[in-house]
Amino acid sequence: MSTAWSHRYAQRTQSVRSSVIRELLKLTQRPEIISFAGGLPAPELFPVERFEQACHTVLAQNGAAALQYGPTEGYVPLRELIARHMRRYGIIADVGNILITCGSQQALDLIGKLLIDTGDCVLVEAPTYLGALQAFNVYGAKYVSVPVDHDGIRVDSLDEVLRTGPKFMYVLPNFQNPAGVTLSEERRQRLVLLANAYGIPIVEDDPYGQLRYEGGHGTPLVVLDRNNQRTDEQYLSGNVMYTSTLSKLLAPGLRLGWMVAPQEVITRLVQLKQGADLHTSTFIQMVAYEAARDGFLDQHVRKLRAVYRERRDTMLAALQEFFPQEATWTRPEGGLFLWVTLPEATDCEALFHAALRQNVAFVPGSAFYADEQPGCHLRLNFSNSKPEQIREGIRRLGEAVKEQLRTSVMAGA
Amino acid sequence: MSTAWSHRYAQRTQSVRSSVIRELLKLTQRPEIISFAGGLPAPELFPVERFEQACHTVLAQNGAAALQYGPTEGYVPLRELIARHMRRYGIIADVGNILITCGSQQALDLIGKLLIDTGDCVLVEAPTYLGALQAFNVYGAKYVSVPVDHDGIRVDSLDEVLRTGPKFMYVLPNFQNPAGVTLSEERRQRLVLLANAYGIPIVEDDPYGQLRYEGGHGTPLVVLDRNNQRTDEQYLSGNVMYTSTLSKLLAPGLRLGWMVAPQEVITRLVQLKQGADLHTSTFIQMVAYEAARDGFLDQHVRKLRAVYRERRDTMLAALQEFFPQEATWTRPEGGLFLWVTLPEATDCEALFHAALRQNVAFVPGSAFYADEQPGCHLRLNFSNSKPEQIREGIRRLGEAVKEQLRTSVMAGA
Repeated sequence: MSTAWSHRYAQRTQSVRSSVIRELLKLTQRPEIISFAGGLPAPELFPVERFEQACHTVLAQNGAAALQYGPTEGYVPLRELIARHMRRYGIIADVGNILITCGSQQALDLIGKLLIDTGDCVLVEAPTYLGALQAFNVYGAKYVSVPVDHDGIRVDSLDEVLRTGPKFMYVLPNFQNPAGVTLSEERRQRLVLLANAYGIPIVEDDPYGQLRYEGGHGTPLVVLDRNNQRTDEQYLSGNVMYTSTLSKLLAPGLRLGWMVAPQEVITRLVQLKQGADLHTSTFIQMVAYEAARDGFLDQHVRKLRAVYRERRDTMLAALQEFFPQEATWTRPEGGLFLWVTLPEATDCEALFHAALRQNVAFVPGSAFYADEQPGCHLRLNFSNSKPEQIREGIRRLGEAVKEQLRTSVMAGA
Repeated sequence: MSTAWSHRYAQRTQSVRSSVIRELLKLTQRPEIISFAGGLPAPELFPVERFEQACHTVLAQNGAAALQYGPTEGYVPLRELIARHMRRYGIIADVGNILITCGSQQALDLIGKLLIDTGDCVLVEAPTYLGALQAFNVYGAKYVSVPVDHDGIRVDSLDEVLRTGPKFMYVLPNFQNPAGVTLSEERRQRLVLLANAYGIPIVEDDPYGQLRYEGGHGTPLVVLDRNNQRTDEQYLSGNVMYTSTLSKLLAPGLRLGWMVAPQEVITRLVQLKQGADLHTSTFIQMVAYEAARDGFLDQHVRKLRAVYRERRDTMLAALQEFFPQEATWTRPEGGLFLWVTLPEATDCEALFHAALRQNVAFVPGSAFYADEQPGCHLRLNFSNSKPEQIREGIRRLGEAVKEQLRTSVMAGA
């Protein structure tokens, strides 16, 4: 006999399943496929030699400390570097306001652990980042969705929703995953004032903010909120928890992210992280610090911007050339994704499989909604393919879309 | 105004506080203190040069893959290496039965997430590993404690407790943290049969099993259980989830642990880990694999055993020499800790502070109990101090103990 494991599982596991994206990605990993499905950075841009030098320096100068247990809060020089780096974007935080996490996914998990009781409602964008839904689901979150348009989350309908008392708002202001849209400055102001008025905090997820290919940097919500907390010089209060990551700026294989919050919130998060994994790898933190220091991070981000900008432009041009008139798409000012909208009647799942037969892949938009899944959308990643692949992939995808639209019309006829 | 954060926190945070040990450790970090408080490996034994070579190899040969996102389950060659390594201890597991985690602390967190509903009872040893209590508390665990003696958990009282229906049993069979005791072979057999009879699974936590300084390796519970599941060659069922770590065998700063379980359980754990942090650092996994391969892990463990054995022997001899007759202690066959018992009336907290004044530190035993905290115990770590420090530290501690016993007698008089 054996344990009847499925009868031992906690209730929360019933709301957990493997990410649809992860399952789809398995189908898209044949080498002949041009994949716009994943959210992967361009591996050919990883600063491999810089990391090799950093590993050497860390181990030669500080090997014993790098391989030993470390503090849960994170490696102080890395937290200081992040504090200095964020200052450039207006975020004034002290080391004590920064917690290092295993990627921003762990930040989302800790936020769920800290804030969500079973049945609590989380206000999310529609569409929103799938990984956040995965992280929050396990704590029994319910959702209320507010649609995004080309200027980000629609704040005009927020007042009413906030009166229903969501536990917090989860917002991606810059080049949102999946839609690629950016929250306008006017809406940012309004959002922060609403959070303050209702006492309902904002979780600001900003993995791509620095990957901007045109226009000026949008003011982080945490900065607008801090400006409103004028008398709080020590950053003891506020309405915003901010999270970002080195995954898109240096390399995702490090699994390094960070959170910024009032000190009392960080203290609580540290306790939760202690129970979750004691701390993030000391060695990885020291290597990342060594690789990023002396201006390298900025220099590298500039390089990424130039390469990704070209890829975005190539994709936009190819969409114009190869996609039918019925399709529309967002024009992201940065980040890794754009979002294609097809006529409502289009069978998105059939399109996914038709595209696969043409050796091209995307993620169907339905994966990114907490509630209702309106229409047929495609999330397309442009960071992980080279320009010539992008053009060829969009050509093939255009064929599949046209074919699918003909089928839909016939089915409708 | 600002969010009233403490009113936003989830209920579960009320059972979470910072580890007493972590707070105490802050007091013990003055350089003049000889600390037996932490559970740290000897940093001078970290194979720094081997890691440097491994980093070089990984980045030179496979840099792009090492820095990219990877599968949640873990890096296949590392899982294969672990499977081969465990075979030496009788654990026959396939790659599909192994999940890589961020240290075994994350394994405990995932186990809590998978199995514990609020109010569920977990059977633990008294005393037990504090980090497990921290991990389980957050999921609302209650506890039923079963005492350990010199042969490990007392199975004679288990029958009755299992009838109360705990969700699972959490057991450290080898050189238990904190008590340093090892579960006898006879009790292992009995424990596994009881788990099977009641359908109540065992979580076998084995961070130190390979650090044995005398006697033969105890048969892992997972092996005994697998032997009972004779027809299940594919490891699809069973009553034991096994977890271990590279923290004590290579270096804790890597944050690499692993779990072994039936395939269906691993599948569920993978889903939970996806939401928790996507995956463990690809780079760290590849470096650990590269460092451990070609027999290095075994060779290094042999070296650790020799050094730690000497330190254990030094501590035992010093206890004999410097501690008063009223004190007793365990004689661990391996691991990192031993456990001193003083007369019940001794004020352990006062002793802790008296010891600090003598520049020597330990962890008071009360930290390691889920329920009642009987008597006065000291957890002493012997891996992190050199023999001459151990002797001097135990001498000082002996003075503090004698002084404290005099005070207790006077207080009682």
